[in-house]
Amino acid sequence: METKTITKFSAELLGTLVLVLMGCGSAVIAGANGTSGVGLLGISFAFGLSVVAMAYAIGHISGCHINPAISIGMVVAGRMKAGEAIIYIIAQVLGALAGAAILLVIASGKAGYSVATHGLGQNGFEAASPQGYSMMAGFVAETIFTFIFLLVIFGSTSTKNIHGGFAGLSIGLSLVLIHIVGIPVTGVSVNPARSIGPALLVGGTAVSQLWLFIVAPVLGSILSAVVWRFVLERE
Amino acid sequence: METKTITKFSAELLGTLVLVLMGCGSAVIAGANGTSGVGLLGISFAFGLSVVAMAYAIGHISGCHINPAISIGMVVAGRMKAGEAIIYIIAQVLGALAGAAILLVIASGKAGYSVATHGLGQNGFEAASPQGYSMMAGFVAETIFTFIFLLVIFGSTSTKNIHGGFAGLSIGLSLVLIHIVGIPVTGVSVNPARSIGPALLVGGTAVSQLWLFIVAPVLGSILSAVVWRFVLERE
Amino acid sequence: METKTITKFSAELLGTLVLVLMGCGSAVIAGANGTSGVGLLGISFAFGLSVVAMAYAIGHISGCHINPAISIGMVVAGRMKAGEAIIYIIAQVLGALAGAAILLVIASGKAGYSVATHGLGQNGFEAASPQGYSMMAGFVAETIFTFIFLLVIFGSTSTKNIHGGFAGLSIGLSLVLIHIVGIPVTGVSVNPARSIGPALLVGGTAVSQLWLFIVAPVLGSILSAVVWRFVLERE
Amino acid sequence: METKTITKFSAELLGTLVLVLMGCGSAVIAGANGTSGVGLLGISFAFGLSVVAMAYAIGHISGCHINPAISIGMVVAGRMKAGEAIIYIIAQVLGALAGAAILLVIASGKAGYSVATHGLGQNGFEAASPQGYSMMAGFVAETIFTFIFLLVIFGSTSTKNIHGGFAGLSIGLSLVLIHIVGIPVTGVSVNPARSIGPALLVGGTAVSQLWLFIVAPVLGSILSAVVWRFVLERE
Repeated sequence: METKTITKFSAELLGTLVLVLMGCGSAVIAGANGTSGVGLLGISFAFGLSVVAMAYAIGHISGCHINPAISIGMVVAGRMKAGEAIIYIIAQVLGALAGAAILLVIASGKAGYSVATHGLGQNGFEAASPQGYSMMAGFVAETIFTFIFLLVIFGSTSTKNIHGGFAGLSIGLSLVLIHIVGIPVTGVSVNPARSIGPALLVGGTAVSQLWLFIVAPVLGSILSAVVWRFVLERE
Repeated sequence: METKTITKFSAELLGTLVLVLMGCGSAVIAGANGTSGVGLLGISFAFGLSVVAMAYAIGHISGCHINPAISIGMVVAGRMKAGEAIIYIIAQVLGALAGAAILLVIASGKAGYSVATHGLGQNGFEAASPQGYSMMAGFVAETIFTFIFLLVIFGSTSTKNIHGGFAGLSIGLSLVLIHIVGIPVTGVSVNPARSIGPALLVGGTAVSQLWLFIVAPVLGSILSAVVWRFVLERE
Repeated sequence: METKTITKFSAELLGTLVLVLMGCGSAVIAGANGTSGVGLLGISFAFGLSVVAMAYAIGHISGCHINPAISIGMVVAGRMKAGEAIIYIIAQVLGALAGAAILLVIASGKAGYSVATHGLGQNGFEAASPQGYSMMAGFVAETIFTFIFLLVIFGSTSTKNIHGGFAGLSIGLSLVLIHIVGIPVTGVSVNPARSIGPALLVGGTAVSQLWLFIVAPVLGSILSAVVWRFVLERE
Repeated sequence: METKTITKFSAELLGTLVLVLMGCGSAVIAGANGTSGVGLLGISFAFGLSVVAMAYAIGHISGCHINPAISIGMVVAGRMKAGEAIIYIIAQVLGALAGAAILLVIASGKAGYSVATHGLGQNGFEAASPQGYSMMAGFVAETIFTFIFLLVIFGSTSTKNIHGGFAGLSIGLSLVLIHIVGIPVTGVSVNPARSIGPALLVGGTAVSQLWLFIVAPVLGSILSAVVWRFVLERE
């Protein structure tokens, strides 16, 4: 690979590592219960602020996708070549795995922690949904949430938008928003890499349900790219 | 309709869909109680961050009103033609209905959910107020909160304001603020479309009380436009 | 008064009205307890986001002081004439009174509310401190918190600071910060107008303790202006 | 010292004072339990918003490091001379001590407060960890969190990043993020000065464990500087 590609690859890997370590880490380490933990609102901010932080750290290097659904959406929207997207996605999945592995090391530093019992912030539906939501609800939610997430990404980074500096902030805050609403349904993915990383280390149901957290986000992303290209920004 | 109108119509419809789905969705799905849900603060952020997200996504297309009270205020302030405002309002109401409908689909994915019991985040006063506030208190609150909301909108988007890029952020955060204060009173509307969408699907009291959530926000908006035009920005 | 003065006067009055109505309103209406209210964190955001909202709404008109300690600090720092500061302070106190009065109207719409029992978000120390902090602790806290608040204001609005657009955001978020730390001590004033408004309507201890919430913030403001002028920005 | 050095020294001292007083103050004064305090999320915002506030207040004077790990990282990255870093670090440690001392004065204003029992927000591991995390977990967490923190700092302040105005916001919000995840592990340092200040006033275990909160952040900072210089921004 040439230098520029290595740089982008490294940025995407590190960015996704941070998203998974900090987002999932907030759920595993800081817990969800309101009195001694950060609560669902705290977890929501952790995922979203990971994106804010990384957007301004590596956005000028790789665009800070750190999410295969975004890279695929960019291809469909005509803003990225498929070949480069594949390199991005490999980096993202490797970064997610690394982030989940580091989280496992830190979490294991507390007596009584077990990956089988406490998990690594993996996503799920039906019995594996945080509040028992059905597979259908999970699929609809993941598809629509990713559609909305990509809408914000396409719009805030559009060349027609003169306030491009705010993109990192609005994209990150929209991920806070999506988590505020959706954690009870699936734990929120909208990002196949974020689901793959923890699932491969946790195994079991997390792996057998992975298909939904790949298919639905990609579907939502493609729908959003189509709406953006042919409705909102058509000439 | 010509292309530009269709684009604006689509943007307003999608933006209001997101506001209702995510704002009301945070209340219905993520709940209001502090230990296992996101609490009133989380719901407040959901409504406000929906506006932040949409402002930077579609602001350069339609101005991101996603609220009939804003479109009416813009007409009174002399910044928009009445004909265009009507098209905007139709899009907003349709988007709010679509957002409430999608929320119903997702919420129904949890066993035990019933629209009659758990609602769709509709507004109300007296017995339908979250904490039993009177109709008068609700009317005053909705009027003044909308007055304040429009004050932020007029000021932060004024051509005399050199920090226009921050408008989406300050407008969205002012909606967070209004919800932090007002949820116990009416659930907070300050936006007739946001009230109409859930009410039409829930029916009953939500519909019979709709008048207040149309009249008060429009009144507050008109007052704000008058103050802005004849006091704060008079030549 | 000439037009420009009337405009600034109106802006300061409205801005302080919003700060008191929404900041104190969050405490009175939305409550402080974490499970059915917005909690201390929610109240902190309400005060700070009121400043963010107003900074971008009226900052280009009056500078958005909405706080006598700021206007006095600006005079000491050589950025404002004493005569104009007096007009600003009159507007701020009137606005604070109007905000507290509107809050009283809305709060009274809930059965069981009584201004004597539930108050209007007034400040206090000793027995009137939310968690029983001493007068000395209250005086030190109010002085130092105002010193810090003014440090952020002087620095973020300095002509040497090329990121002036962020001033409204950083000033408002620093008020969130001060409330996160200080609510248990005095309820946090750092703003004589914010204390005067509710106190005059509540009476009793709130009035007899008002002196501290005038003297300490003004002292902190003067100290900050001196440090800024003779240490941090000396030539 | 010449004028410019005195100005920078004063800015770094005041900035670190604010970070320790307000960050640690939120934990000591406003407490961590969710119903009558600000909770872990509130403490997280206190630390991060201290940085946001100071970044826009003194960033144009000293760069607002207020953290020895940042100054050392800047030297390793080739952006600062070692001699100036030493002056910065002296100012930071003095500021942290001053901040902890002011916090002690305010906290002592509440009957029943004792520094031995309630502390000053000091960091710790093993039995001194908020939730009993091991020394190894603490070391890994502090190293990696500082690595991530510096990644955001290097990237958002890079001369290749055209959105430099957002650096203060993204750096501060990344510190919110790190606290959301890490408070249960060590209370979060990522800043030797922030650990030294409270520890010297509390004594005991806090002092004997100080080495970790100096070594791990400095290690993380150096790693980040190396990655930035030789991978992400190599020519």
